Amino acid sequence: MSLIVKKFGGSSVANAEKVMNVATIITDEYKAGNSVVVVVSAQGDTTDDFLEKAAEINKKPSKREMDVLLSAGEQISMSLLAMAIEKIGCPVISLTGWQAGVTTNSVYGMARIKTINTERIKKELDSNRIVIVAGFQGINKYDDITTLGRGGSDTSAVALAAALHADKCEIYTDVDGVYTADPRIVKDAQKLDDISYDEMLELASLGANVLHNRSVELALKYDVKLEVKSSFERVPGTTVKEVKNVEKMLVRGVTRDNDVATVSLVGVENTPGKAFKVFSLLAKGNINVDMILQSIGRENSKDITFSVPLNQLESAIELLEENLELVGAQKIDSEKEVSKVSIVGAGMVSNPGVAAKMFEALYNAQINIMMISTSEIKVSVIIDKADAEKAVKAIHDKFFNHE
Amino acid sequence: MSLIVKKFGGSSVANAEKVMNVATIITDEYKAGNSVVVVVSAQGDTTDDFLEKAAEINKKPSKREMDVLLSAGEQISMSLLAMAIEKIGCPVISLTGWQAGVTTNSVYGMARIKTINTERIKKELDSNRIVIVAGFQGINKYDDITTLGRGGSDTSAVALAAALHADKCEIYTDVDGVYTADPRIVKDAQKLDDISYDEMLELASLGANVLHNRSVELALKYDVKLEVKSSFERVPGTTVKEVKNVEKMLVRGVTRDNDVATVSLVGVENTPGKAFKVFSLLAKGNINVDMILQSIGRENSKDITFSVPLNQLESAIELLEENLELVGAQKIDSEKEVSKVSIVGAGMVSNPGVAAKMFEALYNAQINIMMISTSEIKVSVIIDKADAEKAVKAIHDKFFNHE
Repeated sequence: MSLIVKKFGGSSVANAEKVMNVATIITDEYKAGNSVVVVVSAQGDTTDDFLEKAAEINKKPSKREMDVLLSAGEQISMSLLAMAIEKIGCPVISLTGWQAGVTTNSVYGMARIKTINTERIKKELDSNRIVIVAGFQGINKYDDITTLGRGGSDTSAVALAAALHADKCEIYTDVDGVYTADPRIVKDAQKLDDISYDEMLELASLGANVLHNRSVELALKYDVKLEVKSSFERVPGTTVKEVKNVEKMLVRGVTRDNDVATVSLVGVENTPGKAFKVFSLLAKGNINVDMILQSIGRENSKDITFSVPLNQLESAIELLEENLELVGAQKIDSEKEVSKVSIVGAGMVSNPGVAAKMFEALYNAQINIMMISTSEIKVSVIIDKADAEKAVKAIHDKFFNHE
Repeated sequence: MSLIVKKFGGSSVANAEKVMNVATIITDEYKAGNSVVVVVSAQGDTTDDFLEKAAEINKKPSKREMDVLLSAGEQISMSLLAMAIEKIGCPVISLTGWQAGVTTNSVYGMARIKTINTERIKKELDSNRIVIVAGFQGINKYDDITTLGRGGSDTSAVALAAALHADKCEIYTDVDGVYTADPRIVKDAQKLDDISYDEMLELASLGANVLHNRSVELALKYDVKLEVKSSFERVPGTTVKEVKNVEKMLVRGVTRDNDVATVSLVGVENTPGKAFKVFSLLAKGNINVDMILQSIGRENSKDITFSVPLNQLESAIELLEENLELVGAQKIDSEKEVSKVSIVGAGMVSNPGVAAKMFEALYNAQINIMMISTSEIKVSVIIDKADAEKAVKAIHDKFFNHE
């Protein structure tokens, strides 16, 4: 008998029919003799509906109240899923974040899980119940509701799997695994049977929408075995685990991320500590800065360009403009029409020339590179958004068809 | 400086515009220097939408999961209302039932408030915040979410007013007070400036939809000063309080209640204790039996007819059929097409002939009476639903226009 955590995203529970489908997946596992904990996101468009309702009333509501509103979404989906399981005839109970013992820090809208008190969940599992837990939410030390931000339900699932020492954490989604590139862009993209945590982490950070990077980080840290699989087709997915023989394949995948924007600080005073001040200001404002490019200082000024998630662009600009004196730039520019295209592979570090091969593919496709960033297992470039699909195809061709 | 509890029903917060209107009422009170606690129901059709979603999945879901689902409704409306108040610029915080310390018993779907731990609310009031509390909901001793059933938000408001020793509890609704009859049926119905708890209690029980009877019971018990007023027009409403001079008006109002059905147990064995067994069975099943009529026993059998709320009819029949041996009836009949029409007035007890006058009005209008029930301050009759409006008009005419 195993303990399995299953996570279903919003598209998997978007309507009554899909909810019943998910209920069948869950009860089949339960009937096979396993203990099942389910993490569920809000149904399909619920979150967008809520955001629209809120915007009609207040364009800038407090994040605390926004979290109260958004967290109602999982409360709806989890109770409906529980009703579907009741219909099939299996014992079930749904629990909100606070009922499931999920406590977080107090960064409303982007909270991080601190601890999970599993007492209630364990009690329900001991009573042979299927336990459904609201993803994406918890409470802080003030007993106020928090949400975990983008990909929060993946994180909830992995954190629960870790806290419960589950045998496996299965992330159900609308694709059937992790591919070498987005199959919607690259027709001959190949599904991977398994992938290492590090590779998955980079793929996740770089726009492969199957898993959120925070959840992969957590899985790596607590050694949670993850599987990404389809909630519509019953086929094996991609397993994320420690992969030993990482050198067999240089590049594991090509990704594109449109959720990115660049900010340029033009004419920044060329004094020591300027970059430090700018980026600690942004960090305090909870802005996730990704790639950074600094021009070589000429005379008394330099330019600093960096990338941020698209939805944080506005806050970043505001924060910088409010602190213009500290920033000390002559001009603040920004650009939304960009994409980040990346290659990921754990074998990359020991194989020189991988980056060069990627740049060659881009050059041959006549695509201009605006920023470059490399790590031990990935190379990312920022390019014009209009070129992104062409770039993914060209790079995938270079690495997967010409080898 | 006063502490005022204001309750807004679903129709008062049905859309963004109405939410902003309610926010203005609240902030005007706050700006006048008063402490304000707001109890809010789910927006307009939310509850119906939820019931529909649930019915698509499971026609008979558990009441526990239904409460999880329904309670999301107030979480949505309270956060939106908080955002509207933030927009106006006043400090505000919204609290769910459990955050506001509302604990109930465990009768899901029809729970009763046991205690309110006001610590959190008082802390927020001390910080000069407007406090919004989700009506209709609480948690039981298992930390599970419960809902209070029909009119639950009125009950939440009065219970909070009692626990906080508020100076006043104002119930905002879409009518501007309590009338001598439903103004939609009787054109010349008159608004009452004030009414006694007992009269209001009877009116509420008998279908005057402005206040739920459980909330009036609570108000009477804890001496909470209630006012029913309009959320759309800023005019004085009707105050519910101890009224001394009750004899000045015999009848205070005429009401109609369509939420009623009758059940007949035909050919019940004529042995002692039969009625006791039947009605304790129904009580255990949480069925609210109202009027009871028992035919005089002839030979070995008698008939028992009683009325129940319409939405409990199905459960009542089921319960009786499951226990047919204990009930010992030859046949169970039921009738949905009935209405209860009542007159209420504290002066009634000392004025004989009031009931007769009501029956005379019905006789003149050619309306057949199926059941009769009287108390010290009310007379109710069950009649054909099709005759109900005509009956209200005839009775109102008799008491209010011919006196």
